[in-house]
Amino acid sequence: MSQDFKRTPTNKVVRSPKRGHYDRKTLFEILDAHFLCHASYIFQNTALTIPTAYGRKGNTVFLHGAKKNRSLTSMLEAENVSVTVTHIDGLVLARSVFHHSMNYRSAVIFGKARVLTDDQEKMEALEIITENIVPGRWNEARLPNEKEMKATIVIAIDIEEASSKIRVGDPSDEPEDYSLNVWAGVIPLELNEKKFVPDPAMDESIDIPDSVLKYKF
Amino acid sequence: MSQDFKRTPTNKVVRSPKRGHYDRKTLFEILDAHFLCHASYIFQNTALTIPTAYGRKGNTVFLHGAKKNRSLTSMLEAENVSVTVTHIDGLVLARSVFHHSMNYRSAVIFGKARVLTDDQEKMEALEIITENIVPGRWNEARLPNEKEMKATIVIAIDIEEASSKIRVGDPSDEPEDYSLNVWAGVIPLELNEKKFVPDPAMDESIDIPDSVLKYKF
Repeated sequence: MSQDFKRTPTNKVVRSPKRGHYDRKTLFEILDAHFLCHASYIFQNTALTIPTAYGRKGNTVFLHGAKKNRSLTSMLEAENVSVTVTHIDGLVLARSVFHHSMNYRSAVIFGKARVLTDDQEKMEALEIITENIVPGRWNEARLPNEKEMKATIVIAIDIEEASSKIRVGDPSDEPEDYSLNVWAGVIPLELNEKKFVPDPAMDESIDIPDSVLKYKF
Repeated sequence: MSQDFKRTPTNKVVRSPKRGHYDRKTLFEILDAHFLCHASYIFQNTALTIPTAYGRKGNTVFLHGAKKNRSLTSMLEAENVSVTVTHIDGLVLARSVFHHSMNYRSAVIFGKARVLTDDQEKMEALEIITENIVPGRWNEARLPNEKEMKATIVIAIDIEEASSKIRVGDPSDEPEDYSLNVWAGVIPLELNEKKFVPDPAMDESIDIPDSVLKYKF
């Protein structure tokens, strides 16, 4: 497997090309640091995207949903689909409105969606998605039974093309604007976990597992 | 303006319909509490989405970008476009893997994209977007000049259809699973601002404005 994706008209970063990356290492870092993607599909000639959980193994991204999920079934009908992952890292306040920006890490992957029909493959994909959301959770919770497996659709997308886009650091202003009496800098933003909230319906004697105690986004 | 959007095949919440909302109040609350959307478009027969900033005034959502921005120009060519806004509020850990979920607030709006050609309208839209990201910033920074205005494209989408989807609260398990010895609860997640980082190239005597001091996502 080559480490870099080819630049094509589909995946080429057109705006701010210096922020574009095409290597698998950068891509996988961005994908593995989140659990929520925006999966895109076409419905009645309109492009649509919905937030959903995902997991990755090797060059493949897995999504799941209820059997008749419109987004997943639409993706299966499409020749080529895309999935976007976005980390918001900060607001970049420049001296000019024009150069205001954001710090972010984002990735778009492209490929063909296929449905998993083999129960073992499907179960493994569900484990990958679950472990990507809360590591360790698969071995704590009750696993899917036959009825639940039947109600669930899992799709796999082998990544054919991809691009990542990253902006970090300070504002970048026009040379003549640096003398302006305008505050400039970055307000970092971060998705943070807060103190867990036990289900009030739960027996209080049940131990809090490490997956919860040590959870870190 | 009617307060509710009609349920249509496009905007109807199919999965977990009880989580669906069609009123403008809920929609506007979700839109106004974020600054980053995922704008979707079709490129070479593939649905794609990219993260971008936005602002709202009344029933209209504004996006902006560089003149030759592929996503915006593609949206202008489309008959109907969609924009998605997603707040991640928490991970819902149920007793069964199957009932794991997320707490979230999301919205999808649909409409026709039109380009703003009138300079005053365009300037007003840029103010709306800027103020939606950092309230108060428009009056602090240097405003766009003629060259910058020419390099910027602003599109408006008058919301024709929309739906919001919200999940809050504790896990919901199968009745027989409540007796399992499995920890269940919620790990709340929140996008937080961190201490601002002044541009090292800036004169340290410049006052930190209220927009930065009081910034709260």
